Amino acid sequence: MRVGEAGERELIRALLRVINRLNVNLMGYDDVSACSLGDGRALVVKTDSFVESADMLPGMLPEHVGRKLVVMNVSDFAAKGVRPLGMLISLAVPEDREVEYLVRLYEGAEEAALEYGFDILGGDTSRGEELVASGFLFGIQSEDKLVRRSGARVGDYVAVTGPFGSTAVAFSILLRGLEAPSERVKEEALKSVYEPHARLGEGVALAEAGLVTASIDSSDGLAASLHELAESSGVGILVESLPMSKCLLEFCEYHGINPVELALYGGGEEYELVVTVPPESWGEACRVVEGVGGHLHLIGRVVEGRGVRIVLGREVVDVERRGWEHFRGWG
Amino acid sequence: MRVGEAGERELIRALLRVINRLNVNLMGYDDVSACSLGDGRALVVKTDSFVESADMLPGMLPEHVGRKLVVMNVSDFAAKGVRPLGMLISLAVPEDREVEYLVRLYEGAEEAALEYGFDILGGDTSRGEELVASGFLFGIQSEDKLVRRSGARVGDYVAVTGPFGSTAVAFSILLRGLEAPSERVKEEALKSVYEPHARLGEGVALAEAGLVTASIDSSDGLAASLHELAESSGVGILVESLPMSKCLLEFCEYHGINPVELALYGGGEEYELVVTVPPESWGEACRVVEGVGGHLHLIGRVVEGRGVRIVLGREVVDVERRGWEHFRGWG
Repeated sequence: MRVGEAGERELIRALLRVINRLNVNLMGYDDVSACSLGDGRALVVKTDSFVESADMLPGMLPEHVGRKLVVMNVSDFAAKGVRPLGMLISLAVPEDREVEYLVRLYEGAEEAALEYGFDILGGDTSRGEELVASGFLFGIQSEDKLVRRSGARVGDYVAVTGPFGSTAVAFSILLRGLEAPSERVKEEALKSVYEPHARLGEGVALAEAGLVTASIDSSDGLAASLHELAESSGVGILVESLPMSKCLLEFCEYHGINPVELALYGGGEEYELVVTVPPESWGEACRVVEGVGGHLHLIGRVVEGRGVRIVLGREVVDVERRGWEHFRGWG
Repeated sequence: MRVGEAGERELIRALLRVINRLNVNLMGYDDVSACSLGDGRALVVKTDSFVESADMLPGMLPEHVGRKLVVMNVSDFAAKGVRPLGMLISLAVPEDREVEYLVRLYEGAEEAALEYGFDILGGDTSRGEELVASGFLFGIQSEDKLVRRSGARVGDYVAVTGPFGSTAVAFSILLRGLEAPSERVKEEALKSVYEPHARLGEGVALAEAGLVTASIDSSDGLAASLHELAESSGVGILVESLPMSKCLLEFCEYHGINPVELALYGGGEEYELVVTVPPESWGEACRVVEGVGGHLHLIGRVVEGRGVRIVLGREVVDVERRGWEHFRGWG
């Protein structure tokens, strides 16, 4: 079977069957890998890549590529509650690419890294047919502070760190050619994909305080991320309300599109956290997140059963397991 | 300026000027990056990539690609005296590649990792126009045991862990179409590039015993590696003898080629270590390397001045700073 038919999930599962034979990975199938340092601490590592033919959006500058490479990796550390120590960048580059382009890419990466308190320490360059930039992030965290995808329990609240939909608007404008209702909406949408931010402060604060039972970032799209969290934890999720960005609401009103549809399925590359919090910890979790300048939005509850459903008016409907398939993914 | 004109060294130097602003990298411009864990230990990290259009040799199986990806990364840890804890693999893959191909690549990588006592812990898959596999190796070593490129002192012996030339023969056969004098020579040469080995045991043993002043692996070719070591240490190197593989000698005799030329400039992707040892430590260094099943070959001395020279009969000639340019590198 070809990878285009298998899909990314199936491919990853096939590859995971081959590795981890020494069984030292503390995390299983999760957003990061981790191994024990033998003193109660874990070394935590993550790789995520930016591939020009798959991930480059119209209008993206090299600084944006560098920033995005950092943010996509940091966001997974944020979800697991780990502060990065440093990062490497591996580049494959066509021979006719300007050195200046790569310097600007590195500048964007270094600037983003410094925002999150760490440094790009080095990397590797190879000749290649297209630009591929792989980020390798590493850090240390106490083993008992690591937050997994699999810890959600029935009765927990489900919360997110910010409103959804701005990246979906950007993709609609950039890749589907839809018109923006105003320059302001366009700018806000494009900023969300050109200059994304990860919720590192929020994720680390929640993990350090031991207030979340499970966490994942929303980079694969909200619907896919909710499904992943529910499946990993062996529970269901009922979504009761969704915080949506102003830019999404204005865009959808202008075009007569259902904003919930776009927020659930039209986005991705949105680096909010999706966390589960026991009800008795809810107040403290909100205070902890506000203490680092963030906000926690309650969106629903962990329920018995399987899958993800959403309350829409008087109806409760299934949330499908899909995202922005024409832009990302294999199928 | 385009990267094809700049060359890899100039490109790397341009990128290094942008990063490391927090100055936490203990290694400077070296084979690995490292940062202090604050307790006398350093977290050591490395990335090196296999790019299909640049690095794939005729006849290479997917298992070979996986093994090579591991060995090229482990070899740099070997030179710095660091035992790996684990590795991640980031893959960019064309959609029409068979899943089976990638599974076999991962199997080759995992098997090689297990040989060196660690595990592939995870990775990342993206869609891309050609196969790019980036390895990310990590480990822990005492800060004071890390061996740098820059420590060679005048009077030190220069030694290598094995004979040179087999990969040069393989490249001559596979890429230049030269005939092998026998099936045995061909097999030995091809094995050196399809199934390489890194000198991890030797490198770690020498570093743990504190017996080497500087070290580098020979993956960029022997001439280039000697130049790099000399330049980083601010010294000259005089080569007095070169251990050459039987396969190289037979091949060169058959074709009437100078084997020294091919051993110095025709190889690369040869994962021997090049180390400098104070004369008073020489005996112990040999014993330590033999204790892990290896052998240390004395090839010359660290001298005052700059550059690398070699004694050939009654003459002393300059060793040029070049390698296998048609296969590797940018120029």
